[in-house]
Amino acid sequence: MANKITAISGFPEYLPAEQLAFNSIVSKVQAVYAAFGYVPLETAAVERIDTLTAKGIDSKEVYALRRLNVEGDDDGAKELALRFDLTIPLARYVSQHYANLVFPFRRYQVQPVWRGERPKAGRYRQFHQLDLDYVTEGALPLAADAEVIAAAHQALAAILPSGTKFKMRINNRKLLQGLLKTYKAKDLPAAIRAIDNLEKVGADATQTALVQHGGLPAPQAEALLQLLREPYPLEALKGVSTTPEAQEGIAELELVLTRAQEFLAPRPSFLVPDLTIARGLDYYTGTVLETTLEAAPELGSICSGGRYDNLAESLSSRALPGVGVSIGLSRLFAWLKTQAPYNTQAATTAQVLVANQSADLMPYYTQLAAQLRAAGIATEQVLAPLKLATQLKNAAKKGISYAVIANDEEQQKQIVNLKNLATEKQQTLPLAELLKTLQPLLA
Amino acid sequence: MANKITAISGFPEYLPAEQLAFNSIVSKVQAVYAAFGYVPLETAAVERIDTLTAKGIDSKEVYALRRLNVEGDDDGAKELALRFDLTIPLARYVSQHYANLVFPFRRYQVQPVWRGERPKAGRYRQFHQLDLDYVTEGALPLAADAEVIAAAHQALAAILPSGTKFKMRINNRKLLQGLLKTYKAKDLPAAIRAIDNLEKVGADATQTALVQHGGLPAPQAEALLQLLREPYPLEALKGVSTTPEAQEGIAELELVLTRAQEFLAPRPSFLVPDLTIARGLDYYTGTVLETTLEAAPELGSICSGGRYDNLAESLSSRALPGVGVSIGLSRLFAWLKTQAPYNTQAATTAQVLVANQSADLMPYYTQLAAQLRAAGIATEQVLAPLKLATQLKNAAKKGISYAVIANDEEQQKQIVNLKNLATEKQQTLPLAELLKTLQPLLA
Repeated sequence: MANKITAISGFPEYLPAEQLAFNSIVSKVQAVYAAFGYVPLETAAVERIDTLTAKGIDSKEVYALRRLNVEGDDDGAKELALRFDLTIPLARYVSQHYANLVFPFRRYQVQPVWRGERPKAGRYRQFHQLDLDYVTEGALPLAADAEVIAAAHQALAAILPSGTKFKMRINNRKLLQGLLKTYKAKDLPAAIRAIDNLEKVGADATQTALVQHGGLPAPQAEALLQLLREPYPLEALKGVSTTPEAQEGIAELELVLTRAQEFLAPRPSFLVPDLTIARGLDYYTGTVLETTLEAAPELGSICSGGRYDNLAESLSSRALPGVGVSIGLSRLFAWLKTQAPYNTQAATTAQVLVANQSADLMPYYTQLAAQLRAAGIATEQVLAPLKLATQLKNAAKKGISYAVIANDEEQQKQIVNLKNLATEKQQTLPLAELLKTLQPLLA
Repeated sequence: MANKITAISGFPEYLPAEQLAFNSIVSKVQAVYAAFGYVPLETAAVERIDTLTAKGIDSKEVYALRRLNVEGDDDGAKELALRFDLTIPLARYVSQHYANLVFPFRRYQVQPVWRGERPKAGRYRQFHQLDLDYVTEGALPLAADAEVIAAAHQALAAILPSGTKFKMRINNRKLLQGLLKTYKAKDLPAAIRAIDNLEKVGADATQTALVQHGGLPAPQAEALLQLLREPYPLEALKGVSTTPEAQEGIAELELVLTRAQEFLAPRPSFLVPDLTIARGLDYYTGTVLETTLEAAPELGSICSGGRYDNLAESLSSRALPGVGVSIGLSRLFAWLKTQAPYNTQAATTAQVLVANQSADLMPYYTQLAAQLRAAGIATEQVLAPLKLATQLKNAAKKGISYAVIANDEEQQKQIVNLKNLATEKQQTLPLAELLKTLQPLLA
């Protein structure tokens, strides 16, 4: 018999207090997204392998299925694999259920994804993503970019410890492409990937990559990098690249920022234009964004996304343009759980303990607990007459606030003891006054 | 490019209205379980294969992992498989995190499980279970059986269509084993499995199985079956089998029923003692239960469970007795979604649409929507001036209740039109009165 089970590396799990903190974060984000009319969606854990790998993804990261001890006819298990993001499942879902959806389709999705990576700090094999997307058919208004950005901004403001500063850094691929053309890039996707790596590898390596992979002449690469890294008024950029693409990109970026600020008003906004934001993925076509936390830059971007012209080109003949952002919840939570208010989360949602001093009084304790629950107070009832000190100690350890204590004699007299488990102060009161005494204490 | 994606058989997914109905059901159950002080738990999707198969489970149903296109050193992927229930993950979790948990450990868990079965009606390869368990170290009070039963009973009452009759059928393994000994069974586990199959195969086949596998003489098998199938006062059973096991089983069953009714009072209870309930799994040692719906017997048991002396014997040297019940949510939902109130669920939680008649008015519409959201009204804002009729039709299709409509002139005059999308009645009112008009309509 093994006495010690070791954790499976890369598959994080939480203790009760952590799980409750995690759930409270998810609830706050959901409340914001639902207020904007986004609906929750859950897709199956698996997709067909040919759906997952249609976009030329590195298939080595995919966890595929197999039936244990079944060879040959495995009912199709070998064609299936675990999703590694929530975007491909959305594309497949929208294509599959197209006829039954009303567009624009606003959805959010909080589910785990799986990647067969070698786990290390901040990199998991199973992690939760929290995706928000606005997908439509026909024209996609730029206001959709702004709505998605504003909703995610509001969600982050709701879950981050109060006073946390973050920056939602917005850019536009058209602007970037226009600038790259002006600066004589030969391979635009390679040049964009080089810019995307800037924060990881630094200016010198980026400049080298722009020259070697992007095909920019060295002086242009240097000048471009300088331009991208300096805060530059968007208005002034109009004179830097006169390509139609750059002009369009600037106009889009200005409008998205304006609209997003309108959505957020009167709240303060942490939106900034940032020309160094590129995003690695090829499918972004306009707005792109990343979000960094001043207090925890090591997390990288906690919320990223952008606008795409066609969600599901490999799956459907219909053009479904959209815009979406994704919060990397598991990685963010590894930091959040060390911060207020999450680092003091109780290990239960029960607020009151009904202690047990006599097996004979079980029906009475049960009645007490039922009354509290009926009044909306989550209540844990001790089901056997253990040592009272142990009952109270365990309750305090879990973070239960109050204990209701009564023995035979007190039951006869219809009085109870109400003990504050944090201060250990105790008062004795008539049973009839219990609820009206407790309610303001718990409010 | 494929134009039609076919569903992956056995992995159910929901349209927005269904997903919202599903989520509302989960929320109702969670509210009941949390009121009793149970905490939510989520475990990783995978377990080690040797953990999953330690109990002699049919490993052919297990979906194991493999890394796609990676042979040899796959970082341990081949040792991992998807969980097929929530009990083994609980056992592993409690063993692994023993030192950081406070006992008794009350937890609920709503997560999908996976089984490599050939899918058919009501049988899935991915389905959600909703488990509730009370696990402790040392003595497990019988009141725990009652609490778990009462909490599940209350949860079912909360989610079933009003007026739905269900039966929670409670039995006790000790009673069953005592009776089987009195009736001269030679192989108790085989005889219990025979009784467990009674509803599936009928009385004749069960009688045959009792004789052939359980080793009962034919007259005893017949007499036992008759006894089990007739409603029999528990009190009278005390004279039927005088084995200590049966006497203990009867006393336990009586106490569990009494306590469970106390927990449920003053609500009506659908608890009944039922001697035909056996449960197939070997690890149950006392209370066992199944739950059937009068209106949908074809669902089989919608909520089943029992008491076990040791949750994690293959994983830990500690004895962790417990009691738990599991609601087969996916299968139950396939029926629930056809019933009120779930069959009229809207496809969005948005209650109000802010229509769009002019791109120039975007900032105004945004303000309107923000005011509604700030008042707690989920609001969908149309982001482009599409045809008004289309906007309203789409909103009505999703089940949004009201539309707020204003054009340039109305914005100037600070008036809005409020349209009931179900009745198509419209009223014009001062903007300042919008909130106080809407709030009672939506309450």
